[in-house]
Amino acid sequence: MANTDTALSIDLNADLGETTGGNPVSDDSAMLNLVSSANVACGFHAGDPLAISRTVADAQANNVAVGAHVGYHDSQGFGRRFIDYTPAELAAETLYQIGALDALAQAHGTRVAYVKPHGALYNAIVYHESQAKAVIEGIKAFGRDLPVMLLPGAVAASHAEKAGLRVIHEVFADRAYNPDGTLVSRRERGAVLHDPQVVANRVVRMATEGVIEAIDGSTFQTQADSVCVHGDSPGAVAMAQAIADELRTHGVHIGSFL
Amino acid sequence: MANTDTALSIDLNADLGETTGGNPVSDDSAMLNLVSSANVACGFHAGDPLAISRTVADAQANNVAVGAHVGYHDSQGFGRRFIDYTPAELAAETLYQIGALDALAQAHGTRVAYVKPHGALYNAIVYHESQAKAVIEGIKAFGRDLPVMLLPGAVAASHAEKAGLRVIHEVFADRAYNPDGTLVSRRERGAVLHDPQVVANRVVRMATEGVIEAIDGSTFQTQADSVCVHGDSPGAVAMAQAIADELRTHGVHIGSFL
Amino acid sequence: MANTDTALSIDLNADLGETTGGNPVSDDSAMLNLVSSANVACGFHAGDPLAISRTVADAQANNVAVGAHVGYHDSQGFGRRFIDYTPAELAAETLYQIGALDALAQAHGTRVAYVKPHGALYNAIVYHESQAKAVIEGIKAFGRDLPVMLLPGAVAASHAEKAGLRVIHEVFADRAYNPDGTLVSRRERGAVLHDPQVVANRVVRMATEGVIEAIDGSTFQTQADSVCVHGDSPGAVAMAQAIADELRTHGVHIGSFL
Amino acid sequence: MANTDTALSIDLNADLGETTGGNPVSDDSAMLNLVSSANVACGFHAGDPLAISRTVADAQANNVAVGAHVGYHDSQGFGRRFIDYTPAELAAETLYQIGALDALAQAHGTRVAYVKPHGALYNAIVYHESQAKAVIEGIKAFGRDLPVMLLPGAVAASHAEKAGLRVIHEVFADRAYNPDGTLVSRRERGAVLHDPQVVANRVVRMATEGVIEAIDGSTFQTQADSVCVHGDSPGAVAMAQAIADELRTHGVHIGSFL
Repeated sequence: MANTDTALSIDLNADLGETTGGNPVSDDSAMLNLVSSANVACGFHAGDPLAISRTVADAQANNVAVGAHVGYHDSQGFGRRFIDYTPAELAAETLYQIGALDALAQAHGTRVAYVKPHGALYNAIVYHESQAKAVIEGIKAFGRDLPVMLLPGAVAASHAEKAGLRVIHEVFADRAYNPDGTLVSRRERGAVLHDPQVVANRVVRMATEGVIEAIDGSTFQTQADSVCVHGDSPGAVAMAQAIADELRTHGVHIGSFL
Repeated sequence: MANTDTALSIDLNADLGETTGGNPVSDDSAMLNLVSSANVACGFHAGDPLAISRTVADAQANNVAVGAHVGYHDSQGFGRRFIDYTPAELAAETLYQIGALDALAQAHGTRVAYVKPHGALYNAIVYHESQAKAVIEGIKAFGRDLPVMLLPGAVAASHAEKAGLRVIHEVFADRAYNPDGTLVSRRERGAVLHDPQVVANRVVRMATEGVIEAIDGSTFQTQADSVCVHGDSPGAVAMAQAIADELRTHGVHIGSFL
Repeated sequence: MANTDTALSIDLNADLGETTGGNPVSDDSAMLNLVSSANVACGFHAGDPLAISRTVADAQANNVAVGAHVGYHDSQGFGRRFIDYTPAELAAETLYQIGALDALAQAHGTRVAYVKPHGALYNAIVYHESQAKAVIEGIKAFGRDLPVMLLPGAVAASHAEKAGLRVIHEVFADRAYNPDGTLVSRRERGAVLHDPQVVANRVVRMATEGVIEAIDGSTFQTQADSVCVHGDSPGAVAMAQAIADELRTHGVHIGSFL
Repeated sequence: MANTDTALSIDLNADLGETTGGNPVSDDSAMLNLVSSANVACGFHAGDPLAISRTVADAQANNVAVGAHVGYHDSQGFGRRFIDYTPAELAAETLYQIGALDALAQAHGTRVAYVKPHGALYNAIVYHESQAKAVIEGIKAFGRDLPVMLLPGAVAASHAEKAGLRVIHEVFADRAYNPDGTLVSRRERGAVLHDPQVVANRVVRMATEGVIEAIDGSTFQTQADSVCVHGDSPGAVAMAQAIADELRTHGVHIGSFL
């Protein structure tokens, strides 16, 4: 973020395409007007092919980058439960999901532009060596060397780098941070921020200064390539709108990291 | 089949890759030594990504063409129950499955080479206009104009031709035919042939003369591009072996229609 | 509804318990304050066991009757797509779902009190002889002779009666009717009513006079044992509240048909 | 097993009812002639309701006790992958499965007589405190205080005892044991025994002397209430037959632990 040009641009990403059986999880149309990257469900933790296809078409129409939001095959758990896959299973499932989404994307004139693991898988590969390695192998096997969006410091990031894949470091708009840059556990008070203006101000500071204020008031530097905004909570659209407005007020362009 | 060259070559296809959760439905390794085209499950009616991946790798190693065996999303019914999808759902699911399989295929150095709808979907698009159209739209949307393997006379065949897709006409090695070339219903006696030598002799005649003997002893001409052999019944491998042996005895090469 | 006592009481039912993977389809808590019968998903078209269990507990706490909302095994289609089950499959699936829900209900001190087929299954057994018969067989096999909630005139109703099961006739609060008492197809304009006050007034008239005004302004008599209010649309709670308020204003008690 | 009467009787159990979509995993009919307890899949790791129903009917006809073989909701992994459920999820899923199976059982004139967790869940609750507790809570919530079949020493056994549930200790016919009574890991050579006569002899010794010979030739005492024989491998029926024959030759009755 040292460069002036990049300092004036930031990527906003959100989890979308999770509609299954006609029941929406987020307001994808509204969110696609606000973000620059859509982490689109691939049918394993959520999303049916038609819903996914529509979200991809809408993303393309809004010039939003399409990411493959690969997850565990567990729609009943929404991909939020760790599953002890073998590495071979996980690599194959990762590749399967990317391929499926890319076919839908190509039909709408776009391509999968990056990969972001979802939910429990995202969390697992922060520390789980064999699953981290397997996810990267699955992505690598797709053959297009897609960037991977990860939590800074994730074990998967080092596997991605070894494999020659670009790592997109992500920060969270509405999550509190510890002074060491780790996330405050959701089990603790204040872990999630709910005031849109407070969140919007934080995102502006991330984008313009590369600084995050920790829960104790101290600050630390961050190298965020993308800011995650939630699409699936009540008030999600309002918060994303507040963030987008505040960024524009401060002259920060919302654009993909690509 | 008038041409001498093609008369000496015939494609044998079988449904493979249907292992789910480690439980095999067929002996894929054995079958891949005998057939020239593998209709590989895509995860919707059967097949998990790892099992599919292994079957594709094995097909590639045996120089067997990989077909996308797309089916209804109904693993509990093994894709054998008609589901009243909307056309948009079916087109999206068809495309999703082809894309997923193609990603696994590319990782093993091959590609999806054709599409064969599975089970109840295969039967539905013999007559069901909107589903037939939707399947063809899904295949067309994949962008590579893949050939489609169908029952001769299927409504889907005319949609495929209109869309510029090659139609692969299929006959069944072990099914009895009516004099008009339609299949004897499975509800009738004698609908399925069980004697490997009888079946092998029929396939040789299909391949060398383009002739099938109907259940009443009459014969009719057929334009089979491929002969389906079953992989999922007890004795399946023995029957496929008998067919392959008999074809070789008669100088008929087993090779893909591609 | 000829009897004065029953005229002053009406059952309101709603489809609930459809949360899967933490994503709610309706506001079950709010709805359970307003209805007298909860059609609780059984895990096949929607609902995971924990979500179902919580809805049942909440229903019990609100003195709301628990119905088994059995559906096709198709979470990706939310049970809204006809599936061509064999009768044996459908009877077994119906029984399986009732048993599962009843176990959860008993753990919370209540029982499944009735059965209401869901979505495409509900519609299929209006006319589909073998599926209608199979659903009733599945219910009958449960051994407690549970009442069955159906569309008036459904083929399933005659099978239920033959089997000695009570039929609960249902009308829809927010659907327009043809003069002959059939529902106006959703494909036609005006099929669904959106004004809470209009809908509330209709329900009061159903409850107090047994009369429904058809789309052409004519009226017909109905023998509704229960009125279905939707829980899964935006504004669903507000509409249910308006209905409940209007009924209370007119002295109509909201209570189960049991 | 000190008592002479019980020494002359032993329970044989096998995992059955795992057919999904018409594809059998084991030869249930043959196995039900040989065992005294059937661990019947409940639809979560395998088994569709119709297949389950048929296995239950067949068990009842053969006077075989029906156990609820509850598993993780993961048909693609056949319940062989640990899933990090919350305790509330696991308790609800356990109860759901028991209730579903019991409804099918009652329709055939029998009841669920015990519970045996399956696969990764079985292994997890050997040591996983919160999952062990949750499974027992789910069983307890069913209200009939069903016996629970477990690995001797499992953490779940102490929870079961605290809850007042009978624990059925299980040994494995075809698995090698360490001298301390633990199973030899499947990753080690010789972990699984394949010679039917060797296995049959071991089972006789378990049944008549309560003794198992460990992999190093030493012996140890065991308190087996039931012996697990596999139904899902090639040769499974032949091995079960050899065991049954050998037991009968030695005057040991095969009968349920109930």
